[in-house]
Amino acid sequence: MSVRVGVIGVGMIGQDHIRRITQVLTGGSVTAVNDVDAARAGQVAAGLPGAVTYPTAQELIADGNVDAVLVASWGPAHEEQVLAAIAAGKPVFCEKPLAPSRDACQRIMDAEMAAGRRLVQVGFMRRYDAGYRAMKAALDDGGLGAPLLMHCAHRNPSVPDYGFTTDMIISDSSVHEIDIVRWLFGEEIVAASVLTPRRSGHAPEGLQDPLILVLEMSGGALVDDELFVNARYGYDVRGEVVCETGTVALADVSEVTVRTQNRHSGRIPVDWRDRFIRAYDTELQEWLDAVAAGTATGPTAWDGFAAAVVTDAAIEALRTGRRTAVSMPERPDFYAK
Amino acid sequence: MSVRVGVIGVGMIGQDHIRRITQVLTGGSVTAVNDVDAARAGQVAAGLPGAVTYPTAQELIADGNVDAVLVASWGPAHEEQVLAAIAAGKPVFCEKPLAPSRDACQRIMDAEMAAGRRLVQVGFMRRYDAGYRAMKAALDDGGLGAPLLMHCAHRNPSVPDYGFTTDMIISDSSVHEIDIVRWLFGEEIVAASVLTPRRSGHAPEGLQDPLILVLEMSGGALVDDELFVNARYGYDVRGEVVCETGTVALADVSEVTVRTQNRHSGRIPVDWRDRFIRAYDTELQEWLDAVAAGTATGPTAWDGFAAAVVTDAAIEALRTGRRTAVSMPERPDFYAK
Amino acid sequence: MSVRVGVIGVGMIGQDHIRRITQVLTGGSVTAVNDVDAARAGQVAAGLPGAVTYPTAQELIADGNVDAVLVASWGPAHEEQVLAAIAAGKPVFCEKPLAPSRDACQRIMDAEMAAGRRLVQVGFMRRYDAGYRAMKAALDDGGLGAPLLMHCAHRNPSVPDYGFTTDMIISDSSVHEIDIVRWLFGEEIVAASVLTPRRSGHAPEGLQDPLILVLEMSGGALVDDELFVNARYGYDVRGEVVCETGTVALADVSEVTVRTQNRHSGRIPVDWRDRFIRAYDTELQEWLDAVAAGTATGPTAWDGFAAAVVTDAAIEALRTGRRTAVSMPERPDFYAK
Amino acid sequence: MSVRVGVIGVGMIGQDHIRRITQVLTGGSVTAVNDVDAARAGQVAAGLPGAVTYPTAQELIADGNVDAVLVASWGPAHEEQVLAAIAAGKPVFCEKPLAPSRDACQRIMDAEMAAGRRLVQVGFMRRYDAGYRAMKAALDDGGLGAPLLMHCAHRNPSVPDYGFTTDMIISDSSVHEIDIVRWLFGEEIVAASVLTPRRSGHAPEGLQDPLILVLEMSGGALVDDELFVNARYGYDVRGEVVCETGTVALADVSEVTVRTQNRHSGRIPVDWRDRFIRAYDTELQEWLDAVAAGTATGPTAWDGFAAAVVTDAAIEALRTGRRTAVSMPERPDFYAK
Repeated sequence: MSVRVGVIGVGMIGQDHIRRITQVLTGGSVTAVNDVDAARAGQVAAGLPGAVTYPTAQELIADGNVDAVLVASWGPAHEEQVLAAIAAGKPVFCEKPLAPSRDACQRIMDAEMAAGRRLVQVGFMRRYDAGYRAMKAALDDGGLGAPLLMHCAHRNPSVPDYGFTTDMIISDSSVHEIDIVRWLFGEEIVAASVLTPRRSGHAPEGLQDPLILVLEMSGGALVDDELFVNARYGYDVRGEVVCETGTVALADVSEVTVRTQNRHSGRIPVDWRDRFIRAYDTELQEWLDAVAAGTATGPTAWDGFAAAVVTDAAIEALRTGRRTAVSMPERPDFYAK
Repeated sequence: MSVRVGVIGVGMIGQDHIRRITQVLTGGSVTAVNDVDAARAGQVAAGLPGAVTYPTAQELIADGNVDAVLVASWGPAHEEQVLAAIAAGKPVFCEKPLAPSRDACQRIMDAEMAAGRRLVQVGFMRRYDAGYRAMKAALDDGGLGAPLLMHCAHRNPSVPDYGFTTDMIISDSSVHEIDIVRWLFGEEIVAASVLTPRRSGHAPEGLQDPLILVLEMSGGALVDDELFVNARYGYDVRGEVVCETGTVALADVSEVTVRTQNRHSGRIPVDWRDRFIRAYDTELQEWLDAVAAGTATGPTAWDGFAAAVVTDAAIEALRTGRRTAVSMPERPDFYAK
Repeated sequence: MSVRVGVIGVGMIGQDHIRRITQVLTGGSVTAVNDVDAARAGQVAAGLPGAVTYPTAQELIADGNVDAVLVASWGPAHEEQVLAAIAAGKPVFCEKPLAPSRDACQRIMDAEMAAGRRLVQVGFMRRYDAGYRAMKAALDDGGLGAPLLMHCAHRNPSVPDYGFTTDMIISDSSVHEIDIVRWLFGEEIVAASVLTPRRSGHAPEGLQDPLILVLEMSGGALVDDELFVNARYGYDVRGEVVCETGTVALADVSEVTVRTQNRHSGRIPVDWRDRFIRAYDTELQEWLDAVAAGTATGPTAWDGFAAAVVTDAAIEALRTGRRTAVSMPERPDFYAK
Repeated sequence: MSVRVGVIGVGMIGQDHIRRITQVLTGGSVTAVNDVDAARAGQVAAGLPGAVTYPTAQELIADGNVDAVLVASWGPAHEEQVLAAIAAGKPVFCEKPLAPSRDACQRIMDAEMAAGRRLVQVGFMRRYDAGYRAMKAALDDGGLGAPLLMHCAHRNPSVPDYGFTTDMIISDSSVHEIDIVRWLFGEEIVAASVLTPRRSGHAPEGLQDPLILVLEMSGGALVDDELFVNARYGYDVRGEVVCETGTVALADVSEVTVRTQNRHSGRIPVDWRDRFIRAYDTELQEWLDAVAAGTATGPTAWDGFAAAVVTDAAIEALRTGRRTAVSMPERPDFYAK
């Protein structure tokens, strides 16, 4: 049986998910769309046989032909939409961030716990990447001993000249490593520090780029994460976990090796889509499968909450220049693995 | 609109395609199955809601709920089944070989040409592999100059101790390179030779393993193809095209690099499925898309015919120890690119 | 003309340099040896035709058949021996550390400046490694833009169970990166911090292993240096400089790639000798060449002094857990490049 | 004790060996030079303190201050010069080819056997390359099983527009693989075939470039050797030995990896000197060491003879287009390993 999905927010990422559900994945269809821009919603729906548009997210959620909700609106709208889906008892996939504040994330958790079953999945797609999955398998295998350190780099070719702030390097970029290290280590993050290297001459005025974010895991492991959003040369996500008897690192993945002009070389992805498109596919396929099976898997509201709490601490560390403890509450049993 | 597929032959490969259509790909469903083993057909159909079984391939093909036919039976049955699909005017995906003899392939082409439109796609899935596609893109780009040579290796970990003959190394293994070099170079193969190195002590009694097949392209380029079906260490398909100003080679693709015990290492696939699963997915998705669009893409009956003709020549070269010219007729205009 | 070298200290490293001069390099011979262990000095000299032994370093230095002095004694003895060589007007190659304290290094610089010409070369052999030289060439070329960051790792398989202290991870291990980043960036280090990750279960009792040392360059670039002396899996020195438009990293250098048991792999060096033997050869050959030519090249007493000053700051940072500014004086013009 | 070397032939390669002996290696000095061009000999000697020139090779060989002879003259002169060195009882290092004909090589072997001890070493320097040595160690270790196949490629960026013939691709280029496979496999070559792919448009008029030379080893293993002397992109020597349970291949060796413009890349050598300079150093150092020790190691006159015999067969195979058996006599016991 096919899962009938209602999509809230049909900008770039929303449209990409619609393409995925309708042209790539199995077991799903898009039956309703909503967007703050009604015209855009209408255009998108026009390309989807049988899909209707709704002026509000609430109406879409209420539609009896919508089995599950995909939230790809802008961050500030997430809380209300996710809460509405929970209230309707419908599974909801919410793009990151779950909500822009710790308190908003808490309210979502509270609602989900009150509902008594897991309905929310947060869009941390790296957990579905073949590289990170192989890394986690190598760690879980135990053959390398306990993990002690992780070195990460997260490089984007560029950001827009205007409107991209240094805080956003934390909230938009590093949030991916914040989630992935929690998942890889199976531990919470207890403190964050930010180091500020020499700025790149290609960084827009006022932007501190690159940064190094240092995260401390509850078990003592340290993570250093180079964040560089104007790295120019490509989209490059790297990671190496250093364990007691060996290391495991994301590999360069190039389909072919070219030998010309005294170089042997492989390609580096051009952007996040190029690098992670299959992770997005796997993520949404597994969500559809779980919805169809009446179960829930993947990153939870707790993961979204934890990411928000750590992000807050990291932004404070950036502002103060000091190591900042993360005030993480106990994880509710509801979200135990 | 979803393509309703009837599957003929539900052994290992047929079941894998069914899994693919129902659990991985979009735009297709399996509505009917047939197998020489009626019990097996029944078991498979039982897991497919709404699918029916037919005692004969002909009845399956005639079913009004079957839009397109997937032939995964054993080779000797292909001709009759593909001809029946053509007669019914239904698109048919036929696993390799198209048919076991040149004459049978010719009859299929004749029928398709008489039908006046392309209905047949042959299952040469390597054309859908990301590595070969990147290789072809590099060649077509022209920046490396004209291709002069290709070195291939096709290594399987092992074959069964009984029943696998040296001829089968040509017909089952090298047929993949025979097709892929025709596609990469955009040329026909005009001659074949076979070299017989020292046998591996792990080769079953009587099997000449490894072999080197040398193919001559119509434009003069040479291809050497090492075929080694008891290579033990893994499933490894390699290729390097040497051009006038550079080369392009399939890269080792391992998701992670592990450093332990004084080695840095990456994994090698364990079998063909591990190596080419995504190529199979892409192949069948593109077939479903083409069927839905009323068009035809991918390897044609002519490609199946050409592979059969070259395979015949290679087997003769193996038997005689001599360079054997390929007696390839002119390609019918119908199959012009 | 061959340079006649007197070697002070014929322990492991001294004997290795003697082997190098007599069996590998050109233009040098060992004519005199001295060691605190007279018996050991005698044994070593017995294997060197024409070499004499001296009970004291001073007598060796005074020998008219000694053109140049190689100091490979233990650190606390360096100052007196190097000063004696300077006083004798003889070129002196001093293994690291130049001297164990900042003040001692200062006295050596004062003496050399007073002598009016460069006589001292310090044994920072990484500057002679083909990898670091290629890295520096890539940076100096300018094509990658300004360097902003460097990630280093310095992993030893193990240290002795007793006697190796956490301070020694700074003074013995990180001193190599301290020198190499000064050389690569052409800048001084202005501050140091130390981060302490989870300890490896393989670290001897009381040893904080691994560590991360963070160095701040005068131009604002940051260097993070993972120091891990019980990494078990091999001797692995890694480095990546992140520049404005690209990066350059030390490559894994394995002579061959082996494919077996589902892995493709290359070797990792077993120890520092394996990794850097050619750097040592090049280092000493260039020293002999410079001595023969009456010139001086390579790391200077200032470099030895700077390493000592930064090491002091890093050890204080380790002790206090705080970022520690490096109190580096102005570089004397005498040591200008 | 230093070996006093007389050098016959001071063109490019002779001068490079002189540089090596005087500026790189230990234990040798050049005391005499000879060249057909007396002026050139005089110029070279002028840069060598204490070296004398002789108008004839014979006079140089007779000089009491010449302990050993290095022959770097042109090929046709080798026989007479090597025979003269043998007659004088002096060790002689002869650049490849030992002599241009099988009969001439036979006369050298006869003379050496008559002299009763090994005096001749032939300049097959690849046996001293770290890559081939690691490959041989992997094969000799036995862990990969018996070798069955070897794939080689030998690519030069270009040859002169005039004067380089197709025969020279065999005699000058492939002779390196002819020697190295005899050494790697510990077997003789019993037959040769030549395949002629499409010519590169960059090959000079009349030159069949590239070629594939197929060699059959006495134990049944096959070697295919791509020879491409106008490969443009760099100097690239590759090799993979395929064994029963794994393979071992020469690795790309680049000191650093650069990431820029959406590529990660390493360098490929620009020419043979760049690629094999260390092999030449090791080769000549080991020769000097052996001479000083009164022993003989390295490629023998038999190896030079065998290379000549195989080269003859390969050139005939090129001319006739047919597999050509190598008429190799029994190896004299004198040359047993």
